[in-house]
Amino acid sequence: MAEITKVALDAMGGDNAPGQIVKGAVEAVNERNDIEVILVGDSQQIESELKKYQYDENKISVVHTTETISMDEPPVNAIRKKKDSSMVVAMNMVKNKEADAFVSAGSSGAILVGGQVIVGRIKGIERPPLAPVIPTAAGVSLLIDSGANVDARSSHLVQFAKMGSVYMEKIAGIKNPKVAIVNIGAEEEKGNALVKETFPILKNCTDINFIGSIEARDIPSGAADVIVCEAFVGNVILKLYEGLASTLISKIKAGMMSSVRSKIGALLVKPALKNTLKSFNVEKYGGAPLLGLNGLVVKVHGNSKAIEVKNAIFQCESFKNEKINEIIKEKLFIENE
Amino acid sequence: MAEITKVALDAMGGDNAPGQIVKGAVEAVNERNDIEVILVGDSQQIESELKKYQYDENKISVVHTTETISMDEPPVNAIRKKKDSSMVVAMNMVKNKEADAFVSAGSSGAILVGGQVIVGRIKGIERPPLAPVIPTAAGVSLLIDSGANVDARSSHLVQFAKMGSVYMEKIAGIKNPKVAIVNIGAEEEKGNALVKETFPILKNCTDINFIGSIEARDIPSGAADVIVCEAFVGNVILKLYEGLASTLISKIKAGMMSSVRSKIGALLVKPALKNTLKSFNVEKYGGAPLLGLNGLVVKVHGNSKAIEVKNAIFQCESFKNEKINEIIKEKLFIENE
Repeated sequence: MAEITKVALDAMGGDNAPGQIVKGAVEAVNERNDIEVILVGDSQQIESELKKYQYDENKISVVHTTETISMDEPPVNAIRKKKDSSMVVAMNMVKNKEADAFVSAGSSGAILVGGQVIVGRIKGIERPPLAPVIPTAAGVSLLIDSGANVDARSSHLVQFAKMGSVYMEKIAGIKNPKVAIVNIGAEEEKGNALVKETFPILKNCTDINFIGSIEARDIPSGAADVIVCEAFVGNVILKLYEGLASTLISKIKAGMMSSVRSKIGALLVKPALKNTLKSFNVEKYGGAPLLGLNGLVVKVHGNSKAIEVKNAIFQCESFKNEKINEIIKEKLFIENE
Repeated sequence: MAEITKVALDAMGGDNAPGQIVKGAVEAVNERNDIEVILVGDSQQIESELKKYQYDENKISVVHTTETISMDEPPVNAIRKKKDSSMVVAMNMVKNKEADAFVSAGSSGAILVGGQVIVGRIKGIERPPLAPVIPTAAGVSLLIDSGANVDARSSHLVQFAKMGSVYMEKIAGIKNPKVAIVNIGAEEEKGNALVKETFPILKNCTDINFIGSIEARDIPSGAADVIVCEAFVGNVILKLYEGLASTLISKIKAGMMSSVRSKIGALLVKPALKNTLKSFNVEKYGGAPLLGLNGLVVKVHGNSKAIEVKNAIFQCESFKNEKINEIIKEKLFIENE
């Protein structure tokens, strides 16, 4: 049997904390027996939520903290000063190997800063990228980096490509994943200074399946499994995905309500449409891992419900048992300390 | 009455040249009498298309050229060497004031290079941005720069903001257009080095209505009228718009075909849906002007049909009669030579 995976869960982070967070933890341990969750946050609030459920009490523990990091706090300050916040305490548990992974729906900035400063990078990893999966017509692709390190250098992007390749092979089960770099044309000579510098290095990497440039137009069709880009560009892609899908969907809905004829049609297509649109909802794809750390940090969307929290916990289990970090260390020729 | 606007039209550029290009020219002069079109390209092919139509022969002239710049040719070489190509000859007409504007559905790269090298920049303009309008829930927004100058500096972005503001006020009729800079968070301290440097300068511009940062998520809802960004980011936004809309629409169509019930519904919603989706088709919004040049250069989509060509020709007329270039010169405090 697989080893037990211990997940430190930020019970105070996100729009639906602590209710949905606690619920997600309960559902996770009830569904699988190789998982333990440590709920970190205000113990009184957590206990009062836990009371609502039945679960194996050996699988869930509570660590009390007194401070909370809010969404609008400057992240560096928050991580430095709020030593007894759920985030800082939980990330210290990962650092000290009391937990394998940390999951939070709280402030993205604080998660990114805490991941680097508290959990710390694998030796040799220059920058830890944030790597969510995004829906495509073909399934999902990994967008790496989607917001952790703006103004990255080419050596960072090369590491992102290798880490992303390992992740998609092991977690999504895609054999020899296609890796592409986001560019403004398909030809090798196109691009900005960063892409022009990075392209030939990626081309010479024998340990990834580099297929060249990808134009943003071809991302939604699923032309690549691993989409490498600098964080500013990646964040624009991720956010535009969310915004454009939601605007298009509301326009389509409004369009359908524009005549009696189409209103009747709308009733008939609704169930089919709902399924389609659900598969294209970025938020439904659970947690975005911050890769390259000594342990795992997973950021889930601020409005996550129990189901997303549960899925992120399962993601931590896969990450541990697929030995992603060990493979990353080998693949990047970094000595295992 | 307004002055006559003379448009040099690349009859050889694009997927549908010369047929649809010539047709667009004929439709333009038949619809309005303040326009003259100079069709530049292989005269035999052009004449044989022109024969199909009735039009005032004083309004359309033909300039014969012997070379064609293809889509995959390196642009700088093409512009330098193919002196008798339709593009180079037509752009020289703008340079020599024999035409007010140049419109082409040909190689984007060659249009951008030719615009700078042949037509030339207004004195004081550092970089000419490519500025298409993109559809939003609220109407349209101007995306400036969408691909002309990668690795731009803050001074370029500030000029883009001012030129874009003039353009949207005069061409789209939006009073005091809202100008925003693409960023990865709404707060002033967020962003990459370029955005952090540009933000305070834009904030101090008294001649534009700068509303701060815009996250890519808020672009499709129409939160800003002028969306300022560096060309790599702008190109990613433009291309993702195209790609995501087309992937979503084909998924929706496939979803509707998934059951008998939804197939019937699809028939009923089809007309309403078609209208909605048409309004969100980036390609339908005609030409992207390359701003800041001594004259006007307009790039239309490679697969443009007569209607898009006609609209781009009308756009040239508005540009001239609204005196966009004169206002840009004043607004940027550049002396009119």
